[in-house]
Amino acid sequence: MSAEGDLLDEVTPELVRRIEAALADGKTEEVRDLLEGLSPTGQAAVLEQVSEHQRDALVALLKRDLDPEMLTELDEDVRDDVLDQLDSKDIAAAARELETDDAVNLLEDLPEDERQEVLAELPAADRAEIESGLAYPDDSAGRLMQRSLVKVPDSWSVGQVIDHCREATDLPEDVYDIFVVDQWGRLSGSVPLGRMLRTKRPVPILDIVDPDIPSVPATADQAEVAHLFRDKNLVSCPVVDEDRRLLGVIMVDDIVDVIDEEAEEDLLKMGGVASDDMHASTVRTVRLRAIWLAVNLLTAVIASLVIGQFENAIEKIVALAVLMPIVASMGGNAGTQTVTVAVRALAMGELTGANMLRFIAKEVAVGGLNGIIFAICMGGAVVAWYHDWRLGAVIGAAMICNLVAAALGGTLIPLGLQKFGVDPAVSSTVFLTTVTDVIGFLAFLGLATIFLL
Amino acid sequence: MSAEGDLLDEVTPELVRRIEAALADGKTEEVRDLLEGLSPTGQAAVLEQVSEHQRDALVALLKRDLDPEMLTELDEDVRDDVLDQLDSKDIAAAARELETDDAVNLLEDLPEDERQEVLAELPAADRAEIESGLAYPDDSAGRLMQRSLVKVPDSWSVGQVIDHCREATDLPEDVYDIFVVDQWGRLSGSVPLGRMLRTKRPVPILDIVDPDIPSVPATADQAEVAHLFRDKNLVSCPVVDEDRRLLGVIMVDDIVDVIDEEAEEDLLKMGGVASDDMHASTVRTVRLRAIWLAVNLLTAVIASLVIGQFENAIEKIVALAVLMPIVASMGGNAGTQTVTVAVRALAMGELTGANMLRFIAKEVAVGGLNGIIFAICMGGAVVAWYHDWRLGAVIGAAMICNLVAAALGGTLIPLGLQKFGVDPAVSSTVFLTTVTDVIGFLAFLGLATIFLL
Repeated sequence: MSAEGDLLDEVTPELVRRIEAALADGKTEEVRDLLEGLSPTGQAAVLEQVSEHQRDALVALLKRDLDPEMLTELDEDVRDDVLDQLDSKDIAAAARELETDDAVNLLEDLPEDERQEVLAELPAADRAEIESGLAYPDDSAGRLMQRSLVKVPDSWSVGQVIDHCREATDLPEDVYDIFVVDQWGRLSGSVPLGRMLRTKRPVPILDIVDPDIPSVPATADQAEVAHLFRDKNLVSCPVVDEDRRLLGVIMVDDIVDVIDEEAEEDLLKMGGVASDDMHASTVRTVRLRAIWLAVNLLTAVIASLVIGQFENAIEKIVALAVLMPIVASMGGNAGTQTVTVAVRALAMGELTGANMLRFIAKEVAVGGLNGIIFAICMGGAVVAWYHDWRLGAVIGAAMICNLVAAALGGTLIPLGLQKFGVDPAVSSTVFLTTVTDVIGFLAFLGLATIFLL
Repeated sequence: MSAEGDLLDEVTPELVRRIEAALADGKTEEVRDLLEGLSPTGQAAVLEQVSEHQRDALVALLKRDLDPEMLTELDEDVRDDVLDQLDSKDIAAAARELETDDAVNLLEDLPEDERQEVLAELPAADRAEIESGLAYPDDSAGRLMQRSLVKVPDSWSVGQVIDHCREATDLPEDVYDIFVVDQWGRLSGSVPLGRMLRTKRPVPILDIVDPDIPSVPATADQAEVAHLFRDKNLVSCPVVDEDRRLLGVIMVDDIVDVIDEEAEEDLLKMGGVASDDMHASTVRTVRLRAIWLAVNLLTAVIASLVIGQFENAIEKIVALAVLMPIVASMGGNAGTQTVTVAVRALAMGELTGANMLRFIAKEVAVGGLNGIIFAICMGGAVVAWYHDWRLGAVIGAAMICNLVAAALGGTLIPLGLQKFGVDPAVSSTVFLTTVTDVIGFLAFLGLATIFLL
């Protein structure tokens, strides 16, 4: 048992270094002992932290003793790498030991032909379950659910249910709820185990069933399922087909993974990273990031075309070139603040048709007020620096324009993208910086041309 | 029961509009009916989406019938606003109906004097429990835990435990595990309810206990507890004091909230927003954001001081002013990609002393390679545009310099901040943009001064 939270740091950098050193010295027994003392998650963390070369050596060493659970904990890029080293027999052996949802998760990213090979190695019953899981769309409730659950007919008494639980040997260890179905297999409700324990044996199970439990269709998107778990504080949720027949159950630990995944995606997309490339190869990372940088290059070129229109003004007043990045940068930052709040609120369902106009109005007010504050700061600084009150007035006015534009862009762009079915996290910032760069340079250089030349 | 996922959209914009309309028309009965048909989470969503004025009216209308659960689901800013309208008697009544952890959560943000008033209204037992919860540090396991759990001595048999569960009336509904303690109240382990149900009555409970269950000290940080839940796929986790005495239990639904909170914080901080200001007043939002914009103004001024050193060069070759933002912007974007991956990996414990050097080396390689790719693109474009191969070579060389600098800054800044105990999510990007702006302008304008003048 863990004393004082030592479990919180199961895999320390020192441990990883010891494993690396033992591996380098060819002490295979020591490597094995160190790894086998770890939980599946700990083993996964080690495989993620060593170099690709060392990882291959570790997998070769452990092949037969690999904990199947460990495979489900690995980052996708690392798992692909590990699966490459295993043949279809090894993968099938691992899949057999996992819950259906984890097995589906393991097989879903394999190339089609290899997946077929693995499925062919499995007993018919396991194969059928995994294939029916794979038949559901990516990221759907059907992919997430496990099929092993306690399901009893609505005609039984509490005593019959308890006897069934006692006799059945294939029931999952982590049972929290008993699901009750009618004669057509349709979900009638559920009974928490704790309540059943406290009820007398002759009572009909239907008397203590919760009929109003939430359920999700197998085709529901995993992000929506996660919202339901959050809103209702669920530990498990039954999955039903279009006729409300009970198909399986989703457990909260899988939802924790979904929430992590969605949060990670939003954060990474906002930062211009398409997917978690921490464990991807250098070449793959270059390719993934170059796409985003190319889009950004385009917007930077558009901004510089705007500047190009004012070469004449810059030639006459070179201070314009010195000051213009300040206006653009402040707009970009203020707009990023707005976009970040908007994207998060959209993802959490907090920004809807009902409060959209209020949100835009508030953001424009915030942009205008901060615009005035920083117009005074920067205008004053420029007057002190260049002893030119007209230049100060121009930069102040441009600052207000750009911060209001940033607020409008920061709200309308994500809302518009969402409306057209485009993920606002992934493209909002690019459009936004285009707006704040163009308006920033245009307002500052344009006003300067009008009032200073 | 929900048919086809209608629960996923309990609060539609139409519903909010209907409530707003009924409220405006003074149809208080209709408002009441519409709100009372909702779950606590649904009611919270409505209060968050209406205007501040309408929210006050709704709270005034519902005062006595407010579901205490609803208060725990509200966003912090909105909750402060709602609590302002309730007197200490109302708040105490709500706190009594909540689990300890939720009651602590409700009271922790109240001003000290109001909190004392509310505590004075509570029965002594509730008050003591809440006060001991408040005694733990913010965001600690002690704040998160609930005290109601099933705790049995290690001398009992399964039958005694079952009888105890049957007779006790104050046990929580959502029991999943029975905790076993020794004569000094120290945790011996736990028994999943499902296993107990399947064991014969005379078996000693100690025979079926899991002694190796994870536990956390009450002072552990909530982010670490969340990591433990993730790594071990836990549904509940006992909390112990320094002598391993069982104090309470943390349930997974509270951990889901923690994970959401931490993910939200990281996303918002990266976007330059100190806290979720979606529901804050305009003035408060202006103040929160202005701090970050002021920091950004400083970095922009530093960048423009660098440009100021090259006024002479810009005066002679005005194209430099047109092109310089491109180099800075590409560096900023490439660096943001690196920082985002690094911050996420640090938060998830994936980037440690063991793989730090490998990570830095990879990022520098990625930066160099993308630098070469975009040096060729942009250099070529500039040669075609300005018919000046030397200008093309200068912008290409500056691009490579800045993308390598961005990779170094994007890795070393968050790692360095983390080392000095500063949250890398909150300040990495500001330092990074300073680096990429300064290096971008310096490399481009400096190389131009050397080779073109």
